[in-house]
Amino acid sequence: MQATGPGDQARDIETDRAAVRAMLSPESIAIIGAGPDTNKLSGRPLHFLRRDGFAGRIYPVNPKYSDIAGVPCFPDIASLPEAPDMAIVAVGAARVGATVAALGQKGCKVAVIFSSGFGELGEAGKRMEADLLAIGRENNIRICGPNTLGLVNAFVRSTATFSQYADQPPVPGRIGFASQSGAFGTAIAALARVKGLGLGYFVSTGNTIDITPMECLAEIIEDERIQVAAGYVEGIADGDQLVRLAHRARELAKPLVITKVGRHAAGARAAQSHTGSLAGEDRVFDAVVRQAGAIRARNEEHMLDMVAALVANPVAQGRGLGIITQSGGAGVLMADRAEELGLEVPLLSVATRERLKAVLPEFGASGNPVDVTGQFLAEPRILSESVKIVLEDPAIDVCIIWLQLMHGYGKVLRDLFREIKRSVTKPFLVCWIEAPEDVRRDLVADDICIVSATERAVDAAEGMVRWGEITRRPPPLAETQSSRPASGEPTAETEVVASLEAAGLLEASGLTLVGTRLARDAAEAGRIAAELGFPVAVKIESVDIPHKTEAGGVVLGLASREAVEKAAADVLASAARHAPAARIAGVLVQRMSAPATEIVLGLRRDPVFGHVVMVGLGGIFVEVLKDVAFARAPISHDEALGLLDSLKGKPLLMGARGREPVDLEALARAITALSRLALAHPEIEELDLNPVFAGGDGTTAVDWLMLRRTSRA
Amino acid sequence: MQATGPGDQARDIETDRAAVRAMLSPESIAIIGAGPDTNKLSGRPLHFLRRDGFAGRIYPVNPKYSDIAGVPCFPDIASLPEAPDMAIVAVGAARVGATVAALGQKGCKVAVIFSSGFGELGEAGKRMEADLLAIGRENNIRICGPNTLGLVNAFVRSTATFSQYADQPPVPGRIGFASQSGAFGTAIAALARVKGLGLGYFVSTGNTIDITPMECLAEIIEDERIQVAAGYVEGIADGDQLVRLAHRARELAKPLVITKVGRHAAGARAAQSHTGSLAGEDRVFDAVVRQAGAIRARNEEHMLDMVAALVANPVAQGRGLGIITQSGGAGVLMADRAEELGLEVPLLSVATRERLKAVLPEFGASGNPVDVTGQFLAEPRILSESVKIVLEDPAIDVCIIWLQLMHGYGKVLRDLFREIKRSVTKPFLVCWIEAPEDVRRDLVADDICIVSATERAVDAAEGMVRWGEITRRPPPLAETQSSRPASGEPTAETEVVASLEAAGLLEASGLTLVGTRLARDAAEAGRIAAELGFPVAVKIESVDIPHKTEAGGVVLGLASREAVEKAAADVLASAARHAPAARIAGVLVQRMSAPATEIVLGLRRDPVFGHVVMVGLGGIFVEVLKDVAFARAPISHDEALGLLDSLKGKPLLMGARGREPVDLEALARAITALSRLALAHPEIEELDLNPVFAGGDGTTAVDWLMLRRTSRA
Repeated sequence: MQATGPGDQARDIETDRAAVRAMLSPESIAIIGAGPDTNKLSGRPLHFLRRDGFAGRIYPVNPKYSDIAGVPCFPDIASLPEAPDMAIVAVGAARVGATVAALGQKGCKVAVIFSSGFGELGEAGKRMEADLLAIGRENNIRICGPNTLGLVNAFVRSTATFSQYADQPPVPGRIGFASQSGAFGTAIAALARVKGLGLGYFVSTGNTIDITPMECLAEIIEDERIQVAAGYVEGIADGDQLVRLAHRARELAKPLVITKVGRHAAGARAAQSHTGSLAGEDRVFDAVVRQAGAIRARNEEHMLDMVAALVANPVAQGRGLGIITQSGGAGVLMADRAEELGLEVPLLSVATRERLKAVLPEFGASGNPVDVTGQFLAEPRILSESVKIVLEDPAIDVCIIWLQLMHGYGKVLRDLFREIKRSVTKPFLVCWIEAPEDVRRDLVADDICIVSATERAVDAAEGMVRWGEITRRPPPLAETQSSRPASGEPTAETEVVASLEAAGLLEASGLTLVGTRLARDAAEAGRIAAELGFPVAVKIESVDIPHKTEAGGVVLGLASREAVEKAAADVLASAARHAPAARIAGVLVQRMSAPATEIVLGLRRDPVFGHVVMVGLGGIFVEVLKDVAFARAPISHDEALGLLDSLKGKPLLMGARGREPVDLEALARAITALSRLALAHPEIEELDLNPVFAGGDGTTAVDWLMLRRTSRA
Repeated sequence: MQATGPGDQARDIETDRAAVRAMLSPESIAIIGAGPDTNKLSGRPLHFLRRDGFAGRIYPVNPKYSDIAGVPCFPDIASLPEAPDMAIVAVGAARVGATVAALGQKGCKVAVIFSSGFGELGEAGKRMEADLLAIGRENNIRICGPNTLGLVNAFVRSTATFSQYADQPPVPGRIGFASQSGAFGTAIAALARVKGLGLGYFVSTGNTIDITPMECLAEIIEDERIQVAAGYVEGIADGDQLVRLAHRARELAKPLVITKVGRHAAGARAAQSHTGSLAGEDRVFDAVVRQAGAIRARNEEHMLDMVAALVANPVAQGRGLGIITQSGGAGVLMADRAEELGLEVPLLSVATRERLKAVLPEFGASGNPVDVTGQFLAEPRILSESVKIVLEDPAIDVCIIWLQLMHGYGKVLRDLFREIKRSVTKPFLVCWIEAPEDVRRDLVADDICIVSATERAVDAAEGMVRWGEITRRPPPLAETQSSRPASGEPTAETEVVASLEAAGLLEASGLTLVGTRLARDAAEAGRIAAELGFPVAVKIESVDIPHKTEAGGVVLGLASREAVEKAAADVLASAARHAPAARIAGVLVQRMSAPATEIVLGLRRDPVFGHVVMVGLGGIFVEVLKDVAFARAPISHDEALGLLDSLKGKPLLMGARGREPVDLEALARAITALSRLALAHPEIEELDLNPVFAGGDGTTAVDWLMLRRTSRA
């Protein structure tokens, strides 16, 4: 995994980016270890570059040949006539380090290393990768790979790859695709081609020790020929790259679709053994992708269906789905799927239904789904008018038209869909089961999205709706320096922050805490309790006893001064028995809060994304159902409300089972306060507020535990 | 929807089945309203039957023609030379009734009615369907349709349809498919053809007023040429047909795969407006399908992927999935999906890993997923040996081999997979992204299942695993007369069963109830409480007050005789105020139970499946999370345990959060007791046990409400 982190201040960001740009749009390419056998990875790129008419300069390097297929071959890197923009390295693993050093010394900015035999071999290979990365740094040359199958810029025809994808000449298009995986990336790229989706760029970063898919996409989306960016990753080390990319993509109004595998323990285990990727926690990844404004795809089909829909359509302005079908059953299945995905299948307006009735056959259905029946084959106008009428309904934002086969009517339908495309301004897609292949190709070429399976069509529509919502959101909060650990930073040593000090930080950030004071002894505890008012709780206070209850250090519901004094004495004695070496500051005396809905709030420093806030309902929701939501700091108030909205236990916040409805605004303010706290105090490693009482009028934290990195870390 | 219910005792089951068999395997077919235009539905069947070489007798009937394309045409039904096995009816809706009557009088046993203009038109059409059904009954002729596109038996080449599916001659195969929908059914059948899956039968039942897809499949699975049955429905009226079919399919060791749309409210609404199907409650359908041993598929792709895997493979003997991949990323994605579906991706044994290391290249991975890398192209043995070695591991029950493209190696790979198929006895499937089409076809013809997308391959493997588990289950409990309401039965009127009478029925079935006695007045309540022992609860007892709490009719935790007397008097007074006309029997006095995990048990008579038992955890699990499980009576003890296992709140039953683990055996016995109660007392319409206290040593119902049909109903 790449290891560029915020710690590496010395590196020049613009130089780093320029190297990636040079790789993506080279004017000259050296191929170190080039050979004449076009069936070998050392021979394929030269063959492809010439076949596709790459207009730049190509420099094969191999002392064995004076030329390869007529292209002059150089004996070594030093004798190259210029520093190439990029170099393909196709030599044995043992020689890769020296080759990269020589390239750097020549002035080449980026090496694309085909060679395998590195991290995929285990620990020894990992050490080779670390050495290789160091060589690159020393010699000012960036590395794509090793174990990559290279990349294609179809616009400039730099087919700098040995991928099977290039067995056919790449066709340029408005999609940029970067993949960590070679084989899976090739599969996705090949599928895209079959679907008629042109890839302007296809990059694989292989073992990804330096250049990442996110860095490639960050350059690719700046290309005005690119409209949609797609990425496949197994794990990411630098979450900031993803967040910055997503923010920029949103700014450019270009959707970013990401697939990450390793969703579950079994997959994550497989991912780790495969690439050594520390997948991070998938739930955090998923949350950050949503928050940053990218769209996550489950798998290769989901990715390409969404990409196909996004590249061919204007932005959806809402979540109302119109379904126009020739099969009632398919309509039902799509309505089912829409409901699962949170899309609306609104009833059409009376006016729309009247207009539909005027065009539909007698046994058609003018609800939503609209059933045009097979009659539209006799009268194609039935279909085209229906689509237009439905899309004109103000409740409809995107439309799916479902049909099957119709091999005898391909031309009629092609003309029909072309006419629809010309006439409407809202997005639509065609779900066509077993479409005639020639018609399907023609329609895709005309920017009419065709999906080949019923539920997948709705999934693609949902991608359009999600993208529309991303575009309408307020811009993300200004990015700040991420608090993620720099790679190579030793695991932080932490210390418990004293409760009242922590309380001060929490209150300064805007959190409300239950009234809490420190008493050094039992008598003082009694006096404080009398001042606070009863009932109170008494809790042991020691930075060496983070888990107070287990130390017998908590007594709740004390109603008199005498009871408080006794409880304080008991708690102090119990703590002394439980942890004789602990530094005891005294006891905390806290006013008991009125019971309310129990919430758990947390903050931790994620290794990939820096500070992340967690929120969940207390009790079984957190412990049994794992019903928690995450967001990366900084978090806006709207984002905080969105987190609460995403909880399965949301009905409890809304007053289910006779509870008082929770003051969601106050709870959201508590979440944004934690986010501010994280930004102001990057040294906070972990913070648990448990429980937090969320009532009808405000949110009060009752217990908290804060850990910060010791100054040494 | 068909309306044959248990109430229609007069109908002869064997005659009904014989008619369906005649339709599925006819020796003579009349086509009423036949015409010469092969583009019209009235002309297509004759064309198809002759094109495909149907060996039976064909009788076009139309007074306008003396012959059609050389086949003698009859002026009317009466003049036919024999009673045809089946008749296609392709006349205007208004003439369908008279046509069916004439067919019945001629002795024809089944009419396949292409004509539309019935239920799909709304209420008037529904009345026409009721009339049509009555005509069929009177004239001893069964009806497929109306609004059906007919059926195909590819073995006898009876292409009795106007479906586009028949634009190409049907190819027979080991799959039988019946669909309620015509257009969606055609799409599925066409997809099956493209995938190389031969359909022995393809039936569509259209508006399904009489013959159902389940009835068709019940005959089709008896055909020894058929190995897998698949059904598509929008709703079913007679759940018994489904259950009987699933039980018989299991007995015959033939998987039954069912897709039903209308999973959610939006879909169910669409389904109802489409076919008028009352979809029933989808969760109940889903539960019964599982319990009966059928496999539910989400959509057309899921159905066909599972069918393709099942028809090509032996039975999986466990849930251990071996993954052999050429792409680490694809391996991770498959492991993810396996975890979501509850499959295991077991670590391979040390011996297996040693054997793998001997064949894998240095940078391959011998874990699970096994990564053979692209090196297998140079040495095909790497792949074939890996598959064999993995399948020989005792922890592995089914294997997926993932690859992509390889268009230059199609023949090598084809031979390799053929060799693997010959060598192994466990099931496997190939996930091949963008396989060369000729190789794909050859492999499918050789019974090697090919799936074209990564996650879908795992979904298909899961279907094999699920089927394996179905085959290993004990046989289902003997079927009894279903308690579902006969169609046409008026909505039942119900009455509350007095609490002690209900208690008697519950205890007789084996349920444990908290000690409960009836007191007629406050003084008697005090005496009874003293005998029962304190604390007790007092509850109003009246068949007119089903909801006691709302009537101020419940007081809990009474610790003394005086308190009981006062509470009883209060409760009686409150009930009299709340419901002055209620017949008050007195008050119930109940020993208070020790608190335990609260469970909700229920029983109700489902309109589709008869008596269904419901179980859930109390409180938020039922009310907020809708975390409940269903099963149809009769329910075995193992099935009851399976219900508990399926609850999201299961960890609470196992002792999460410091609770006492629940006695699951006792709780399962309570569920089977409810099932027995339902069978013994079909008059019970509804029963709620809420709460039931499930403790570490037994299960005790604390409150119950039983409704039964009044004798009049």
